Amino acid sequence: MTTPNPASLSLNTATTRKRWGLAQAIEGCARHGIRGIAPWRDLLHAMGVEAAARAIRSNELTVTGLCRGGMFTAPDAAGRAAAIEDNRRAIEEAHALDAQCLVLVAGGLPAGSKDIAGARLHVQEAIATILPYARQAGVALAIEPLHPMYAADRACINSLAHALDVCDAVDPQRAGGIGVDVDVYHVWWDPQLEAQILRAGKSRLHAFHICDWLVPTRDLLNDRGMMGDGVIDIPRIRGWVEQAGYTGFHEVEIFSQLDWWERDPDEVLKVCKERHAQCC
Amino acid sequence: MTTPNPASLSLNTATTRKRWGLAQAIEGCARHGIRGIAPWRDLLHAMGVEAAARAIRSNELTVTGLCRGGMFTAPDAAGRAAAIEDNRRAIEEAHALDAQCLVLVAGGLPAGSKDIAGARLHVQEAIATILPYARQAGVALAIEPLHPMYAADRACINSLAHALDVCDAVDPQRAGGIGVDVDVYHVWWDPQLEAQILRAGKSRLHAFHICDWLVPTRDLLNDRGMMGDGVIDIPRIRGWVEQAGYTGFHEVEIFSQLDWWERDPDEVLKVCKERHAQCC
Repeated sequence: MTTPNPASLSLNTATTRKRWGLAQAIEGCARHGIRGIAPWRDLLHAMGVEAAARAIRSNELTVTGLCRGGMFTAPDAAGRAAAIEDNRRAIEEAHALDAQCLVLVAGGLPAGSKDIAGARLHVQEAIATILPYARQAGVALAIEPLHPMYAADRACINSLAHALDVCDAVDPQRAGGIGVDVDVYHVWWDPQLEAQILRAGKSRLHAFHICDWLVPTRDLLNDRGMMGDGVIDIPRIRGWVEQAGYTGFHEVEIFSQLDWWERDPDEVLKVCKERHAQCC
Repeated sequence: MTTPNPASLSLNTATTRKRWGLAQAIEGCARHGIRGIAPWRDLLHAMGVEAAARAIRSNELTVTGLCRGGMFTAPDAAGRAAAIEDNRRAIEEAHALDAQCLVLVAGGLPAGSKDIAGARLHVQEAIATILPYARQAGVALAIEPLHPMYAADRACINSLAHALDVCDAVDPQRAGGIGVDVDVYHVWWDPQLEAQILRAGKSRLHAFHICDWLVPTRDLLNDRGMMGDGVIDIPRIRGWVEQAGYTGFHEVEIFSQLDWWERDPDEVLKVCKERHAQCC
């Protein structure tokens, strides 16, 4: 396995969100020679979309994804319609940033519901609804399957196979504009992972996220590890996405209440670069 | 959906393990009219196998499973051989108790390893090794796929499909003696669940475990919910296992540091019976 190209590193702003706003993250990437950035929308709104787009352009950064659209599930039709509207705004923002994709996190069970099959159907319908709008805007949609431990409260799409089934359903001709985001944290355990990455192929692999799975994991949400500190064989998974034709960025997304969010973000970016070279 | 038969309720001793030893759990089941029990081996050893078998027989309880065998992964051959030996002892204990099955939890990644595919291969080889011994003892083996959040540290078999693939590999003729344990906590999120339960069929469905998935889940290990307190559609899953031909017990297994382990076990059993009738 060859060492990853340092120019392929991207910073997802979740990694530095506790201490840096988007403007600081943009400057940080420029200072550390990191060429990609993936903003979260709350930070984007705080900075302002136009100001962010200008700062990103002037620093010649690539926006490897906008986090996040989706969250399509709701107890009623009004809630689902509001989600569609919000996703249209997210598509406009992704267009304004020239983002390589808009990441879609499905949404979990609506409050009070135990009908996960029904929730999954609503998600698929919602993605079908926004896809023409995204195509018109030139924004690729990337469904991110989340780890099954988030099935109830965050995302009812929990495997790459399921995400690709949704792609097939909404884009049976593979006309494009819809694909997946492979985050190693969510899918590393899946015995079907290699086969499903190859099934996705270059045309549906829109983003590749890296971090690590810690043992023990002390919190379901915010205890992700820095690459190399956990048990995920990241080079092997990178090999599979490259074998499938992916040539894009490797985006570091670390939610870490107990560790990395407590550190100086300049230190975090330095370690990200080192670990990207050594462990990915 | 019909109400479950109250006579199908079984108590897994994990549910009361903080306050009751096995003798107390046996007496508790008898007192509450619960007809099945599934001991964990540490409690079994503390009571003594012969004494436990006598007490279970004299109370006319059915042992719906012995928890647990498995844990086959280890960093070296000596460790794996020791695991095989321990599983032979577990089979003897299951035989002594006339248990309906020995539950197998695969084991996670060996210390220092990131090779989950290799670990899975070792697990399959180990199950193939113990299967003839289990058949000779008349003990059915039940592979329990654990939730993917336990892939690193407890079990590298994380879906019913994978567990059944292992069954197919070690018992290609379906001669019997090897099957699965469906625990709703571990598999409720799986979009393939219904299809895989039907694939298993009556001959490979050896146990059915119930509890609930809480939102939020505050701890990865010990925050399982009482049936009805979470988001799992238990009646629907029970319908699938019954459709597949399963007519066995419904075994309550609740790890709950923050709630049910803190309560009087007599109260816990009372609630188990109520919720079994109302929510399963």
